[in-house]
Amino acid sequence: MIDAVKTDPFGEVNAIDVLDLASLEGRAEKVLGRGEFGYISEGSDDGYTMRRNTTAFQDVEMLPRVLQGVEKPDQSTTFMGAKLASPLLTAPIAGNTLAHSSGELGLAKGAKEAGIMMSQSTFASKPIAETAAVSDGAPYMFQLYMPKDWSYCEYLLDEAKNAGALAIILTADSTLGGYREKDVMNHYHLKGRLANLEGYNSGQTGVGAGGLFKESMQKLDLALIDKLASYSGLPIIIKGIQHPDDAAAAITAGAAGIYVSNHGGRQLDGAPGAIEQLPAIAAAVDHRVPIIFDGGVQRGTHVLKALALGADLVGIGRPFSYGLALGGWQGVKAVADHLKMEINIAMQLTGCQTIEDVKRMKLKTRFA
Amino acid sequence: MIDAVKTDPFGEVNAIDVLDLASLEGRAEKVLGRGEFGYISEGSDDGYTMRRNTTAFQDVEMLPRVLQGVEKPDQSTTFMGAKLASPLLTAPIAGNTLAHSSGELGLAKGAKEAGIMMSQSTFASKPIAETAAVSDGAPYMFQLYMPKDWSYCEYLLDEAKNAGALAIILTADSTLGGYREKDVMNHYHLKGRLANLEGYNSGQTGVGAGGLFKESMQKLDLALIDKLASYSGLPIIIKGIQHPDDAAAAITAGAAGIYVSNHGGRQLDGAPGAIEQLPAIAAAVDHRVPIIFDGGVQRGTHVLKALALGADLVGIGRPFSYGLALGGWQGVKAVADHLKMEINIAMQLTGCQTIEDVKRMKLKTRFA
Amino acid sequence: MIDAVKTDPFGEVNAIDVLDLASLEGRAEKVLGRGEFGYISEGSDDGYTMRRNTTAFQDVEMLPRVLQGVEKPDQSTTFMGAKLASPLLTAPIAGNTLAHSSGELGLAKGAKEAGIMMSQSTFASKPIAETAAVSDGAPYMFQLYMPKDWSYCEYLLDEAKNAGALAIILTADSTLGGYREKDVMNHYHLKGRLANLEGYNSGQTGVGAGGLFKESMQKLDLALIDKLASYSGLPIIIKGIQHPDDAAAAITAGAAGIYVSNHGGRQLDGAPGAIEQLPAIAAAVDHRVPIIFDGGVQRGTHVLKALALGADLVGIGRPFSYGLALGGWQGVKAVADHLKMEINIAMQLTGCQTIEDVKRMKLKTRFA
Amino acid sequence: MIDAVKTDPFGEVNAIDVLDLASLEGRAEKVLGRGEFGYISEGSDDGYTMRRNTTAFQDVEMLPRVLQGVEKPDQSTTFMGAKLASPLLTAPIAGNTLAHSSGELGLAKGAKEAGIMMSQSTFASKPIAETAAVSDGAPYMFQLYMPKDWSYCEYLLDEAKNAGALAIILTADSTLGGYREKDVMNHYHLKGRLANLEGYNSGQTGVGAGGLFKESMQKLDLALIDKLASYSGLPIIIKGIQHPDDAAAAITAGAAGIYVSNHGGRQLDGAPGAIEQLPAIAAAVDHRVPIIFDGGVQRGTHVLKALALGADLVGIGRPFSYGLALGGWQGVKAVADHLKMEINIAMQLTGCQTIEDVKRMKLKTRFA
Repeated sequence: MIDAVKTDPFGEVNAIDVLDLASLEGRAEKVLGRGEFGYISEGSDDGYTMRRNTTAFQDVEMLPRVLQGVEKPDQSTTFMGAKLASPLLTAPIAGNTLAHSSGELGLAKGAKEAGIMMSQSTFASKPIAETAAVSDGAPYMFQLYMPKDWSYCEYLLDEAKNAGALAIILTADSTLGGYREKDVMNHYHLKGRLANLEGYNSGQTGVGAGGLFKESMQKLDLALIDKLASYSGLPIIIKGIQHPDDAAAAITAGAAGIYVSNHGGRQLDGAPGAIEQLPAIAAAVDHRVPIIFDGGVQRGTHVLKALALGADLVGIGRPFSYGLALGGWQGVKAVADHLKMEINIAMQLTGCQTIEDVKRMKLKTRFA
Repeated sequence: MIDAVKTDPFGEVNAIDVLDLASLEGRAEKVLGRGEFGYISEGSDDGYTMRRNTTAFQDVEMLPRVLQGVEKPDQSTTFMGAKLASPLLTAPIAGNTLAHSSGELGLAKGAKEAGIMMSQSTFASKPIAETAAVSDGAPYMFQLYMPKDWSYCEYLLDEAKNAGALAIILTADSTLGGYREKDVMNHYHLKGRLANLEGYNSGQTGVGAGGLFKESMQKLDLALIDKLASYSGLPIIIKGIQHPDDAAAAITAGAAGIYVSNHGGRQLDGAPGAIEQLPAIAAAVDHRVPIIFDGGVQRGTHVLKALALGADLVGIGRPFSYGLALGGWQGVKAVADHLKMEINIAMQLTGCQTIEDVKRMKLKTRFA
Repeated sequence: MIDAVKTDPFGEVNAIDVLDLASLEGRAEKVLGRGEFGYISEGSDDGYTMRRNTTAFQDVEMLPRVLQGVEKPDQSTTFMGAKLASPLLTAPIAGNTLAHSSGELGLAKGAKEAGIMMSQSTFASKPIAETAAVSDGAPYMFQLYMPKDWSYCEYLLDEAKNAGALAIILTADSTLGGYREKDVMNHYHLKGRLANLEGYNSGQTGVGAGGLFKESMQKLDLALIDKLASYSGLPIIIKGIQHPDDAAAAITAGAAGIYVSNHGGRQLDGAPGAIEQLPAIAAAVDHRVPIIFDGGVQRGTHVLKALALGADLVGIGRPFSYGLALGGWQGVKAVADHLKMEINIAMQLTGCQTIEDVKRMKLKTRFA
Repeated sequence: MIDAVKTDPFGEVNAIDVLDLASLEGRAEKVLGRGEFGYISEGSDDGYTMRRNTTAFQDVEMLPRVLQGVEKPDQSTTFMGAKLASPLLTAPIAGNTLAHSSGELGLAKGAKEAGIMMSQSTFASKPIAETAAVSDGAPYMFQLYMPKDWSYCEYLLDEAKNAGALAIILTADSTLGGYREKDVMNHYHLKGRLANLEGYNSGQTGVGAGGLFKESMQKLDLALIDKLASYSGLPIIIKGIQHPDDAAAAITAGAAGIYVSNHGGRQLDGAPGAIEQLPAIAAAVDHRVPIIFDGGVQRGTHVLKALALGADLVGIGRPFSYGLALGGWQGVKAVADHLKMEINIAMQLTGCQTIEDVKRMKLKTRFA
């Protein structure tokens, strides 16, 4: 009699040295397939918005303050009641098994070990329950691509609630996919399991991820916020806000959080760098609800800039995918830890003892 | 006895894959002669204005709007009463047999199949009547380089009217050719038939295109607008407007449309990018007459930007020449269809259900 | 008995094709010695101001005007009473035999044949009288580097007056040479005769040009203007004006003309592009005296921009040196003729019939 | 019996040709170890602030003035009572034996021979007394990294006072080291003796420089200024000021000088170029105390720009390290002498007879 071979759900992992977040891309390209790397790294159209996300941080300058009596800065914070070692979030990423066999499990474990917030995509490669079991009480949010089928939506909301999700992040900027040329050149269609859809379909496998926009509802409107909140009883955060009026309208319609993002420059090319829109949106939000920000963050200083311009939590996407690809959950943790090290230096040198000090910091911007 | 060999007027055609409009140039260079490619691709002097036409679009940014209830956007529109599947125009291009044996016939058929507006140049390689027969009721305009010989002008206007032209586009910015260095380096002079001049000369062939500015009138003035309108009974659109005062003066003098263009950067180098002038001209026009725009358009987002800044119809020049060179009429159609695909995505992601929504969209510009 | 061999004073000449002024530099580099080419082509320090001279023209944009009834524009003009075929000047250049054996004689003949203004440097390789004999009534000005020795100055002024100079151009920006690294790297010191100094020293040859700043007076002040004017009876034009206050002070002190220039970026590096200072200086001058401008002009459109911003005469330096190097006087004429061709196109396309129309033209500037 | 071999404390020296300061880096790279060169040349994070330090000078333009009667400009000045041949300072540099065996001794002798101010770092490779003995009355300042151990601080202040230091420069911007990737890549830790710490520890050698931030106090505040001033009786200059409010607060707390610096872009990356902050800080200081400036200075014109924007003394760092590496004290002197030559030209060409004239000069800035 032969015992069943138990596979380690976290796959092959290894500690990685992180020099900086930007250099991870080149290293990940060597271990990922051409199509997978293209899919993860690309932006839409000419990549203007994707590149601008990072270069726009150069139009925000910080003035170091001295003799402020700062020592051993404290970057811990809370978001929607959850305690975090650092104001960082793994931004929602579809199909993480593209990067590593552990998929969202590795992402969740890496985030938990680093003490940061984890979010899981509707288009995850692993089921909600399985991922949440890894998080096991560590702060976790569920990202929703609104399905056409309301009962499937109910299934997702139920699973997320059962898994202890702090909030539902409704992605509103992707009612259609951006035009991404690398996928066309590579004849690449997103592969892998759609674990949640399989779960809804009672474990039926083989549902490909390629048709994901076909499965999603296009015609989203403000009324949806209340519908989702009422059914789930969870706070609804709207992701993909780039216009102050949309932030205001979403809050009026019941949104419990605003997620400023241009989807990593993967949707509408020709939009400004995400950080350029943050100040105006923060003014419109006026502290009524918390703000999540993502878009081109590659440095600890970028995190400080986002916080000082109005964010409460800062999402990182591709760098975590690359960390996952290179080292499994240990790679994810190494990326987070590196960023925490950079944040610590930046706080000390700008004279900020706490995250609240960072939020009060005045910056020089060339765009606000 | 041998039957006359019938040549297909559309020549060799083939479907082409269009990744994006910008990459067509390199592909077309491989199939065109050096002189022909130089003539089509070049700008005047240092090419500043030609390059600025496209780069200036980066100084116009769009803010995606979310939760607007948009689905399956409708990009159809009308221009001067003609129904169009998309607000696109084949900008007037001289001597299209340089690109493909079918010349304007291929251009007309491609435009018709794609449901967009076609325009034919005075310096076309094919006669007005023959081209219009291909269009066969599809929307068609005739572009006029004012000849020195009024009776030749009457001939052209008669032919255009008989062919059902919606309007006459009078090109006002080319009383002299810009200084184009590639032609000098290649010892290139525009070759091929001037079909309309042959028609006027009762079929006499061999009239070269090289001396085209010799055949044109230099001393154009505002009084010409009324003269052309009175003779033809057709709306007169003035092409090459870059100054708001010229737009206002032309309307006062009877112009039925304003065509904002710097001739693809082929005339006066040192002029701004065409899109930079559009807002001020649109303000001067103030919806009294429709506005056509061309200049550096390479993306669906560029089309949206032009519409939002005041255009009613957007012309594309070189990319259609390259499409024609690569695939005959099917290449032209493929270029238009690709652009329509990009326009569709951009409308959905900016929250625009209709072209009217696009025109109402607010943009962030760094130049207006 | 052997007859003396008569050498043609204009040396070997040949017609050259001029594609554009910018490309002359690379061609001249091939026929000039390394040291000579370095000396002619270089700027001071990092070359910022030299490069900015030309790139600053991109911050001035022209708007073509249409339907203005312009045909066969007339670029002839007058300057201090002299009739010119075009508002162009050969800017003062030292030691023209570095470029070509004919030196200033070639320059003078080329200028005369092209119908433009010629100016001769104190540090010329050919005597004033000999050069002026070539000009022979064609408009001619003498540029003065103020010598320490007043009697030498009197000699120069006498010679210039006898030669029929229209004006004396006093160079005020070169009381010391800029720091020019190519000369240091090439161990290059300006070679060749100082013909005027030889003349003053009764034909004594062998006076090298290397010590030219040693021979010049450093401590220049405003009182010098009246002293020079009184002695010579000629109008005094101050060259090297970059500040409006200096222009105003010079006029008050008796200057009959203002020459806006940063010496081709060869003196103080870190000064703005010359064209950037022109509008403020023109405002200070307020048409009291004529304005000469030089600095980075390489296109007919640059000439129009300078005129529209306040210049009455536009100087060209290095391109004439390169033309001289490549073709003797015919090269000089070819450069001027090419520029006249470009000016003609630019006038037609901007709707300017005359130079006065150009001066009235409104521009879009990013610096004024 | 063998006599002790006397080693020349200045090591191997040789005159070097200095073409310009920028080109020294490439030459020094060839004679320095990879780790040492990396440590000296690097900036923190992406090097944005380091590069911006130099490029920001392009956003400050000078307008040459003419006919001002200037000749043989005088760049001598005084700073805190010390007479200087030029307003230049060797900025504090740690561990100069990395560059050359003579370390601070070479730096001090080079500075003295050139007539400029010398400053010595807490983390020097040579003891204060030994270095000051070389300066021997020439102007000298001591830079303090605040130690955790107050008695060590007393030792340093005593030594500095005994050595005749004009002032104590307290570095306030380095309570933690910036993130410097070259060191990580090279596995480099600052090597060499910490001579002053050895001195404090009664000559005990082997105290490595690697742990220098461990030895320093992080929690610096304004009260420290008075404490240091009271103990030492010396003027306290605060180094690392980038915010006007910090300058004002430091003066209120007793600072006798303000040192505007971003530590050569080695600490917080994302700070503006140092010169960009100078005007606002000078306004806040309002001539109450003198201002030292450093940051990216590579040209004589940069020195003039810094003086005109408010500095009284201008520090140079890396170029002196490179000069030291290439030629010992003679290299240091050669760098200073080259800069003095460039300053002389720039003063003459801007019409400045004295340093006071330079300070009154009006500039065109794009950032102030």
